Amino acid sequence: MSRPTDATRRNPATGERYAPHLEPRYREIATFLRAPLVERLDALDIALVGIPFDGGVSNRPGARLGPREMRNQSSLMRSIHHVTRQDPFAQASIADIGDVRFSSIYDLERVSDDIAAHYRALHQAGVIPLSAGGDHSVTYPILRGLAADAPVGLIHIDAHTDTWDAFQGSKFHHGGPFRLACEAGLIDPKRTVQIGIRGAQNTAQGWDYSDASGMRVVFMEEVEALGIEAVIAEARRIVGDGPVYLSFDIDSVDPAFAPGTGTPEVGGLTSLQALQLVRGFRGLPLVGADVVEVAPPFDPTGNTALLGATLMYELLCLLAERCAAQAEPK
Amino acid sequence: MSRPTDATRRNPATGERYAPHLEPRYREIATFLRAPLVERLDALDIALVGIPFDGGVSNRPGARLGPREMRNQSSLMRSIHHVTRQDPFAQASIADIGDVRFSSIYDLERVSDDIAAHYRALHQAGVIPLSAGGDHSVTYPILRGLAADAPVGLIHIDAHTDTWDAFQGSKFHHGGPFRLACEAGLIDPKRTVQIGIRGAQNTAQGWDYSDASGMRVVFMEEVEALGIEAVIAEARRIVGDGPVYLSFDIDSVDPAFAPGTGTPEVGGLTSLQALQLVRGFRGLPLVGADVVEVAPPFDPTGNTALLGATLMYELLCLLAERCAAQAEPK
Amino acid sequence: MSRPTDATRRNPATGERYAPHLEPRYREIATFLRAPLVERLDALDIALVGIPFDGGVSNRPGARLGPREMRNQSSLMRSIHHVTRQDPFAQASIADIGDVRFSSIYDLERVSDDIAAHYRALHQAGVIPLSAGGDHSVTYPILRGLAADAPVGLIHIDAHTDTWDAFQGSKFHHGGPFRLACEAGLIDPKRTVQIGIRGAQNTAQGWDYSDASGMRVVFMEEVEALGIEAVIAEARRIVGDGPVYLSFDIDSVDPAFAPGTGTPEVGGLTSLQALQLVRGFRGLPLVGADVVEVAPPFDPTGNTALLGATLMYELLCLLAERCAAQAEPK
Amino acid sequence: MSRPTDATRRNPATGERYAPHLEPRYREIATFLRAPLVERLDALDIALVGIPFDGGVSNRPGARLGPREMRNQSSLMRSIHHVTRQDPFAQASIADIGDVRFSSIYDLERVSDDIAAHYRALHQAGVIPLSAGGDHSVTYPILRGLAADAPVGLIHIDAHTDTWDAFQGSKFHHGGPFRLACEAGLIDPKRTVQIGIRGAQNTAQGWDYSDASGMRVVFMEEVEALGIEAVIAEARRIVGDGPVYLSFDIDSVDPAFAPGTGTPEVGGLTSLQALQLVRGFRGLPLVGADVVEVAPPFDPTGNTALLGATLMYELLCLLAERCAAQAEPK
Amino acid sequence: MSRPTDATRRNPATGERYAPHLEPRYREIATFLRAPLVERLDALDIALVGIPFDGGVSNRPGARLGPREMRNQSSLMRSIHHVTRQDPFAQASIADIGDVRFSSIYDLERVSDDIAAHYRALHQAGVIPLSAGGDHSVTYPILRGLAADAPVGLIHIDAHTDTWDAFQGSKFHHGGPFRLACEAGLIDPKRTVQIGIRGAQNTAQGWDYSDASGMRVVFMEEVEALGIEAVIAEARRIVGDGPVYLSFDIDSVDPAFAPGTGTPEVGGLTSLQALQLVRGFRGLPLVGADVVEVAPPFDPTGNTALLGATLMYELLCLLAERCAAQAEPK
Amino acid sequence: MSRPTDATRRNPATGERYAPHLEPRYREIATFLRAPLVERLDALDIALVGIPFDGGVSNRPGARLGPREMRNQSSLMRSIHHVTRQDPFAQASIADIGDVRFSSIYDLERVSDDIAAHYRALHQAGVIPLSAGGDHSVTYPILRGLAADAPVGLIHIDAHTDTWDAFQGSKFHHGGPFRLACEAGLIDPKRTVQIGIRGAQNTAQGWDYSDASGMRVVFMEEVEALGIEAVIAEARRIVGDGPVYLSFDIDSVDPAFAPGTGTPEVGGLTSLQALQLVRGFRGLPLVGADVVEVAPPFDPTGNTALLGATLMYELLCLLAERCAAQAEPK
Repeated sequence: MSRPTDATRRNPATGERYAPHLEPRYREIATFLRAPLVERLDALDIALVGIPFDGGVSNRPGARLGPREMRNQSSLMRSIHHVTRQDPFAQASIADIGDVRFSSIYDLERVSDDIAAHYRALHQAGVIPLSAGGDHSVTYPILRGLAADAPVGLIHIDAHTDTWDAFQGSKFHHGGPFRLACEAGLIDPKRTVQIGIRGAQNTAQGWDYSDASGMRVVFMEEVEALGIEAVIAEARRIVGDGPVYLSFDIDSVDPAFAPGTGTPEVGGLTSLQALQLVRGFRGLPLVGADVVEVAPPFDPTGNTALLGATLMYELLCLLAERCAAQAEPK
Repeated sequence: MSRPTDATRRNPATGERYAPHLEPRYREIATFLRAPLVERLDALDIALVGIPFDGGVSNRPGARLGPREMRNQSSLMRSIHHVTRQDPFAQASIADIGDVRFSSIYDLERVSDDIAAHYRALHQAGVIPLSAGGDHSVTYPILRGLAADAPVGLIHIDAHTDTWDAFQGSKFHHGGPFRLACEAGLIDPKRTVQIGIRGAQNTAQGWDYSDASGMRVVFMEEVEALGIEAVIAEARRIVGDGPVYLSFDIDSVDPAFAPGTGTPEVGGLTSLQALQLVRGFRGLPLVGADVVEVAPPFDPTGNTALLGATLMYELLCLLAERCAAQAEPK
Repeated sequence: MSRPTDATRRNPATGERYAPHLEPRYREIATFLRAPLVERLDALDIALVGIPFDGGVSNRPGARLGPREMRNQSSLMRSIHHVTRQDPFAQASIADIGDVRFSSIYDLERVSDDIAAHYRALHQAGVIPLSAGGDHSVTYPILRGLAADAPVGLIHIDAHTDTWDAFQGSKFHHGGPFRLACEAGLIDPKRTVQIGIRGAQNTAQGWDYSDASGMRVVFMEEVEALGIEAVIAEARRIVGDGPVYLSFDIDSVDPAFAPGTGTPEVGGLTSLQALQLVRGFRGLPLVGADVVEVAPPFDPTGNTALLGATLMYELLCLLAERCAAQAEPK
Repeated sequence: MSRPTDATRRNPATGERYAPHLEPRYREIATFLRAPLVERLDALDIALVGIPFDGGVSNRPGARLGPREMRNQSSLMRSIHHVTRQDPFAQASIADIGDVRFSSIYDLERVSDDIAAHYRALHQAGVIPLSAGGDHSVTYPILRGLAADAPVGLIHIDAHTDTWDAFQGSKFHHGGPFRLACEAGLIDPKRTVQIGIRGAQNTAQGWDYSDASGMRVVFMEEVEALGIEAVIAEARRIVGDGPVYLSFDIDSVDPAFAPGTGTPEVGGLTSLQALQLVRGFRGLPLVGADVVEVAPPFDPTGNTALLGATLMYELLCLLAERCAAQAEPK
Repeated sequence: MSRPTDATRRNPATGERYAPHLEPRYREIATFLRAPLVERLDALDIALVGIPFDGGVSNRPGARLGPREMRNQSSLMRSIHHVTRQDPFAQASIADIGDVRFSSIYDLERVSDDIAAHYRALHQAGVIPLSAGGDHSVTYPILRGLAADAPVGLIHIDAHTDTWDAFQGSKFHHGGPFRLACEAGLIDPKRTVQIGIRGAQNTAQGWDYSDASGMRVVFMEEVEALGIEAVIAEARRIVGDGPVYLSFDIDSVDPAFAPGTGTPEVGGLTSLQALQLVRGFRGLPLVGADVVEVAPPFDPTGNTALLGATLMYELLCLLAERCAAQAEPK
Repeated sequence: MSRPTDATRRNPATGERYAPHLEPRYREIATFLRAPLVERLDALDIALVGIPFDGGVSNRPGARLGPREMRNQSSLMRSIHHVTRQDPFAQASIADIGDVRFSSIYDLERVSDDIAAHYRALHQAGVIPLSAGGDHSVTYPILRGLAADAPVGLIHIDAHTDTWDAFQGSKFHHGGPFRLACEAGLIDPKRTVQIGIRGAQNTAQGWDYSDASGMRVVFMEEVEALGIEAVIAEARRIVGDGPVYLSFDIDSVDPAFAPGTGTPEVGGLTSLQALQLVRGFRGLPLVGADVVEVAPPFDPTGNTALLGATLMYELLCLLAERCAAQAEPK
């Protein structure tokens, strides 16, 4: 474990130093989980990254505004977990490193390359990324950055398998990242589990690809029938002991809990189920994680971004615990 | 089964024909479930019908705008069911036939007569109606059109029994359609089940009428105690093998999932329970179905109309499967 | 039991008397649960009281507008309970007595004193209060008014233990009422149960205080694991047979069901669970109850205030049943 | 002038009397303009009346909720006018007398009769009514109650002339009250001015009726060209010195200022113009006035109801000044 | 003038024919201005076209949903203009021809080509297009379709000059269509006027390009100083007698009147000014017109789409009057 | 003029430096006007300061969330003014210095002292503050920090004079800052002008105080009658050549343009008038300025915060121009 990043701030008027994350929640500049904003990766264990891009959606846009609003709702997040009493900020060096930059927001392939380069740099610096989308098309280039050496396992929580082929002339849309990742050898389909899938489709193509490639698809009806604990066990069985990436699409959650997304599907997870599901993956060797598809223009109460921020906190606990475990003397 | 209605459209500028329901979801004119809009019943199995009337409400109006908004949210609907892999559009000839016309929107009895005449014509043409309300007062005249020959069984999913007597000088309000239908011999109370009932009342009159007439009332607390599967079994036991109508009042669902309705009652079904409940009636000889009381002015996220459209899709699957089964050679 | 308060109103134009609570729900002046508004406590069993104060919040304000909006949503409430068939208005004399007045809304200690004096007067008049906040800071002075003679038991339903120490220079904020009440001997920590607790914190101080003082804390995860019936049994075991106060913070409910609150925490109770939980306390010797932290500015659908009003109705049933029982000849 | 109605309230807990309208704006029960709610007309000069009916609309309903929400927004109203320094509550005895009751909300003719009877009683008691709709169909029966003896002049501010013939089988809809009133001899078309008219129509029928009957129609474009002062002068010239009724349809105002209405027309008055227009009628012998068509379901900010309440206050100033002038010794 | 398109519809149930645009406003399928939806250009004078594309925005997306919502709000539109008493539907053959189809929504250049081809076909068929965007990038390819033969004059109403250079690697974004059109010789800069420009910029590049190329830029402050009539006169002076295109960006209007847009700038036109400005161009030889940048996700009241639909109606009056004039015998 | 603050940021992943304010508007961390966030006052000319406090309101709270949301909407701000072509960021060294810290948010007097100390430090460092409230109570302590040596002139734009006496036991509420400032000799009432005043009051006390002390009160009706240019001239005549402070309460603007505020008054300024008014004060020796009373919970479109941010930009232009002028060699 690195030394925790300095999280205090100097009051420019009085000169005193203080801890912004202990101030009333509506004060201070909004960063992810109230972490300090940094310009360097030095001595960083975990980077919180925004990817404000929604050029890959097939229906309603708006997820480009997701990182901004998840940072805003992050103000309600605090440090000590009420179940585990774990404090991730005491276990790892954590910072908000800002947003990925794009050379052209109008070109899906260049965006994909920009993201891949960004995460490759993080990976090379030994920093674990926890990302906020953006639409789901961003996860393919994240995996390009993180899994270039060997395929990783995947825990994918979503209403859709996102293993569809080219749509409207492009493969880089938000319905296909895991087909691309599978084809590129970035994920191991035998160590891939997709949880919460539901909703009618115009072809069975994506479902069939997942099946044919060997992925384990847990439709929402099976989640309900088995219960969350059994789903966790099944997912852990599938991904095994190797490195694994976790991608959480907010549309896996029912739109009553998370209306702010581009392709809502009724009949999904409750927020409590979502939290318990994520918490169930403690101890897995996660190489990174993301929360995607939060679209604030469709979120009049802010609940979706609040849930997104809370899921980021839960994921951070998983990642920080790993950092702490690895840092311990053997 | 009839030959599927032609669902393609000619691009006026280029002359090419294409399938509107395969276009990106925000394109094209909004019809129910992206079905073609027709002006004739010829060769039609199932008609999707709007009934934009809310003159029968006792509290907040707005359901007259329900068909318009359910058509709008219908754009997110697709064809192949993720559980059954059934495609209703391949099983039956289906079209949106537009809205019922009224000779006077200000006169409840004339509206009732207009609706009854409309459904009598559909019934005589051998077309099964799947309707979108409007307030619940519309179901009595629907039944006048469909069940004039013999009483039908009824599956009624709602927060209220809607078996109340005259209110404010009229029997044709949205709290009384099933008392009227029972008195007129359109439904068989012994083959009637009411599911999801809850909420305080100023008199016990409606509850008492349901009991006294022999209807089976499953209050929400019993739904929760039994579980959805047992409720389905009980409902199937009650309605038996004869023809049955299914009426789904969106206020049966908890207002967290469906805020857009005129008389919300907290403590209702989840959207997943609602979907599972409807799916449980596969194979029943349904003579028609409706989704009512969606009131868009109280639905800032559009979730209520989206759920309404999804329930229409689920009901369409039930109806189309029947059409396909009947069309098969014995 | 006292004679029911006259709930009729004289039509000023026609002179006829009529019952406002039987009118269409959107008519008439908005009072709590459509009870008559009175200026005297004479012959009153239960007083409905508004406490429009939110000066004690630590995050988003707005709960000062809670009583107004819960009165507004109260119009949907009726009298006969659908499970118990109980009519509280026939069992007890009930009225809306208006809002607590403050000598200074800018001074937390004076507000606390004003509230305490108000409830002391109710207590001395033998009237049981059912209150609508306001933020949770109001419950400490309520208890000062009701429990000055001897500590009471406490059923506290909330996302937060509210047993935190001074914050930003004051002990009278909304995160500390039960620590103050415990220190002042107004509640018996051994007869105190806190249900629904969840969410990360910056220190463990409040959780630790609850534990150390002997309170029973049922975190949300335990609620989910045990089920509502078992939680009710455990709570009844803790509070025993003595007098008990019930305080319901609306943020115990998941923000999908109750977005309108100042410090939302995802992963909470459903509204059905909330209703069942409250109903589980029938027969307990309640000395009063409250519903707090409803903040209408964050409640675009009105669902939160509607749930708040429905919870008030459920609590009223508990209180009125006690009144009726005590009034019966032995 | 009568003695002002007692506007104080007794605090039920403490016994002290206090003035609710001087309390913080979010406290107390919501009545029109914070006036006391009474059950008798004795010694009353001006009655504030709600008419929660929208059964006459031709498009979006919701105005039945107008009186409730205008009472709610009325809390921001105070007593002394910032231009005239007039205090209407010191000039006349004023009270909220509640809502008109209906024998059947489903029957437009009976509603019309109920309203007419209500206003006839007020008229006979010598009380001047200031009313809050409800849709515009209510003004015809108001005039039936007030102008049965002789036709009155009319100042009608609206986007529509509301002089259309029967629609959908009824003459009692909200687009025809002034045609009915003219035909019934309740208003003098030569002393009638209609201000702010605009928006396309499917026939010229209503515009033609206004012209043919001799009404002066000031289209919105003429308002803009002349300026408000000249419009006031023209209107005063038309209505002359005789008794006059003023009817303000909120859709005369641009939907940027007043979105909450059923048939919005862009390109209307600003709120400042609306206030100045009303203020311009000081000294006219008004027999009553109304503000109609406020539909809260389409008013997410509450601005429309706030403007409605402010217009009621401005109209009250006109009415009270007349009362004070008449009460003065000659 | 062609024979008016058949605007009646056959009721599928009863067989009667009726005029949908005379039905209550909330009934029937939503098309632009309630015009019939057609699949052929035969005998058509004016085509109403949707362009649901927002891939060219530089800030908030959502305008892809504009055509759908302008069709929805179009229901409030009627036929006879209240100022001119003109009925465009009696003057020209008008229909909704649906939306432009795209071969790839992810590729700005291909979208540009698809739109250009679509409008070229309309132009060759002698049909005048009135379009609803979509973001402002769509106007360049519209002009490619209409002005390939010779440059046209341009009336451009907007908060931004949209003459900026490449941004984020592309020239086809929504800030540059008129620079592209000028460079391609599609518009004559000497016959181009830009009205309503305002708001700070990071460089003066676009303003400078407009100036240097000879366009007349009327900043918002000049609009306010001159008044609308003088602005109209100046614009007519600039565009002269030749063919002219009119492009209306809804962000020219103040966000109080039109909040639903991607790059709002405070301090703009009122809706009345916007209507008067458009009406001022009667008689000009318009080759087409559009209303762009209506973004429904940011439009909670629907006012923006309502204003957009009303502007389409006003533009339709201009176009239809030209058709009628040209059809008259000399 | 100081050297401009370094406004570039280092991309932590790639190491490149770039200018965040030139990125797409939805990217990057939200600071006021996209200025860099600093921890030191060194070499700073103008400090942008948030004061997230609303404990002084008398009606609806929420302004504590104003700085956060004005920072968010600030993303739409750019640098070069479209009228003056001035770039304030090139004229002065400008930074966001974060929010004022409070020792107790529950104690109005301590908050007042905290703010006063903060501004005293800025004043002593020679930094000019441009502040975002918070409710209007914050302006009194700002003046305590800036005007301790000698009274300043005041341009106060507001719907209310804010010269009222103690309310609810405190003088430090948001209705009294300028009475306190006058009594404390911080402002010169003869050099004070109040613009936009309107709305009824329960006493004339505040209006009378302003008059009696010699302030010039320009009621809204006078603004409308004179026109903005004449109001500017009058205000400049009043404040003369000495140092002056400008305080802009967003409720001076009509709630159609700025609904998000605690005590809205209909009939106010348009946003264009507001901008022109502020711009009219170029060249005045401003010692600071603020924009207060933006309350995001009542601002569903974000327009109020957007207008607040734009007014901050306009004020920044005034302040920076002064800095540039003073820095020039004589």
